[in-house]
Amino acid sequence: MQTILEPAAMQTWARERRARGETIAFVPTMGFLHEGHLSLMRMARDRADHLIVSIFVNPLQFAPGEDLATYPRDEAGDLAKCASVGADVVFFPTPASMYPDGFQTRVKPGPLAGPLCGRSRPTHFDGVVTVVLKLFNLVKPQVAVFGRKDFQQLQVIRRMVRDLDLDVEVLGGPIVREPDGVALSSRNAYLTGAERAQAVCLSQSLGLAEQRVASGEATAAQIIELVRAHVTAHPSAEVDYVELVDSEELTPVVGTLTGPCLLALAVRFGATRLIDNRVLVP
Amino acid sequence: MQTILEPAAMQTWARERRARGETIAFVPTMGFLHEGHLSLMRMARDRADHLIVSIFVNPLQFAPGEDLATYPRDEAGDLAKCASVGADVVFFPTPASMYPDGFQTRVKPGPLAGPLCGRSRPTHFDGVVTVVLKLFNLVKPQVAVFGRKDFQQLQVIRRMVRDLDLDVEVLGGPIVREPDGVALSSRNAYLTGAERAQAVCLSQSLGLAEQRVASGEATAAQIIELVRAHVTAHPSAEVDYVELVDSEELTPVVGTLTGPCLLALAVRFGATRLIDNRVLVP
Repeated sequence: MQTILEPAAMQTWARERRARGETIAFVPTMGFLHEGHLSLMRMARDRADHLIVSIFVNPLQFAPGEDLATYPRDEAGDLAKCASVGADVVFFPTPASMYPDGFQTRVKPGPLAGPLCGRSRPTHFDGVVTVVLKLFNLVKPQVAVFGRKDFQQLQVIRRMVRDLDLDVEVLGGPIVREPDGVALSSRNAYLTGAERAQAVCLSQSLGLAEQRVASGEATAAQIIELVRAHVTAHPSAEVDYVELVDSEELTPVVGTLTGPCLLALAVRFGATRLIDNRVLVP
Repeated sequence: MQTILEPAAMQTWARERRARGETIAFVPTMGFLHEGHLSLMRMARDRADHLIVSIFVNPLQFAPGEDLATYPRDEAGDLAKCASVGADVVFFPTPASMYPDGFQTRVKPGPLAGPLCGRSRPTHFDGVVTVVLKLFNLVKPQVAVFGRKDFQQLQVIRRMVRDLDLDVEVLGGPIVREPDGVALSSRNAYLTGAERAQAVCLSQSLGLAEQRVASGEATAAQIIELVRAHVTAHPSAEVDYVELVDSEELTPVVGTLTGPCLLALAVRFGATRLIDNRVLVP
C-alpha cells in the first residue's frame, strides 16, 4: 500500500491507470476510521482494479465554532486499517495543498442541502460537495462509496454527480452499529460515559418508530412526536431535528405516510452532535 | 465528422477513447461560428488525437432580459465550418438534456468574476463555469481552448480548473479581427450598418492607449480617460466599462502602470454589448 500526500502526485497516479483502461474505486473519509468506513472499503474494493482511500479533515465543511480543531485523528491506526482491507493507495493531503492561496471557486448544492443538517449547518454541504468534486478529479474513480448514516450527504453528492455529469457511480453503504445499536461515528469519541450510554436513544427511537409504523401508524406528526419524546426523556440529549422526509427530494412528509420515506434525526449531547436515520416503509 | 446530440452518448464516446489512452482536445462554443472560433479549433486540433467542438447556447449564462432568445444561430453553416477544420465530433446538446428537471447544483466562481463584465452581468460567470465543468465532464478533454477576447472568462475558467483540480490544460487563443480592427464576435451580427461603422472605436481606442503608453504615459486614470473620450465621441456608443486591471487577479491598477496589465472595455450600441481588450506593457 502506497501513501500519497500531494494532490498532483495522486492525479498522475490515477491518470496513468485510467489511460491503461484500469478501474478505480474510491472511499473518501475524514479519518479516525471505524468499522463503518471499513465496510465501505470492502464494498468498493471488489468493484475495481484499485481501491483508493482518502483521509482529509476538510476545513471547508466546518463552520467557525464547529469541531474542526478537535476532530479526532489517528494516522497510524488509519493506515493500518486501510492496509488490512486491501487499499492500494491512501491519499492524505494537507489543507494547504487542497486549498492553496487564491482558492476561490466553490460548488453549491441546491435545495437538497437546505433541510435536515443544512438547517443548523448552512454552509456544510457547500464544503462537502466542493471537496468531493476535487477528490473525484484527483482520484478519477469509476465508483465511489459513501455511508448511508450521512444520508443527506449521500443524496446531495448524488445530485451533484448527476447535475455536473460526473462519470462516477455513487454507492451508499449500510449503517454499521455498535452491539447496543449506536451508529458508528468518529464523533462518538467525544462522548462522556454518561452521554455514550444515553446515545442509544437515537437508534432506539428509530426502532420504536419502525414498530409503530408496522402496527399501522401513518401520521407523520405522531411518528415524529414519538421519536422526539423518546429522545428528550434522556437528560443529556437535546434534539436538533427529527424529520420525516421524502427519501429522494428530502421534502417533508405532510400528513400521512403513503410510501417509503426517511426518518432522520440529529441530537446534541453537550457539544457533540450525532445523527442517525432509517427508511420507514408504511 | 460525427454529430452527437445526447450528453450520455458524448460521455460514452469520450470514455472509450480515454480508456484506450487516446487524447481529446476541446473547443466549447455557442455556435454562429466565425474565424475566431476556427482559429481556436486549429490550435486545439494539433494537440490531441481527437478534436471535439461543442455548440450550445447556454441558458444558464444569460440573465433575464439578455439576448438568449435572439442569439444568432446557423446550425448547417456551423457544422460545415467544424468539418472544414477537421473536427471529429460536434457535440450539440439541447438545453433540456443539459439541464433536466431537478437540476440544482452550481459552480460559483470567486472574486475574479466580480469586476469588468461581472459588474453588469452578476450571474453570467456562474453559468459559464457551471456549463464548462459539465462539458469537460462529458467531453473529457486533456486540452481546451478559449478565446482571449473573453479575457475574464478565460481567467475565471483557469481559476476553476486550478481550484477544482480539473485535469485539463486551458489555452487562450488570440483575438481575431476584421480588417478594420473590430474583434470578431457572433454578436456583431446584431449591429446596424451605422453601429458597425462606429464599433471600430473599441479597437481604435485600445490602439490609441497602447501608443500613449509606448510614448511614456503611465497614469492609469489618464489612459482610461483617453479610451473613454475616444469611445464616447461616437454617438451610438455607450460605455459599460473601461478598466485597467492586473491581468491575473483582475484587480484595478491604482496610480501608475508598473508592469503588464489588461486594458478592457465593454461598449453598448443600442441593445448590443461588445467587448475588447489588450495587454498593455509600460
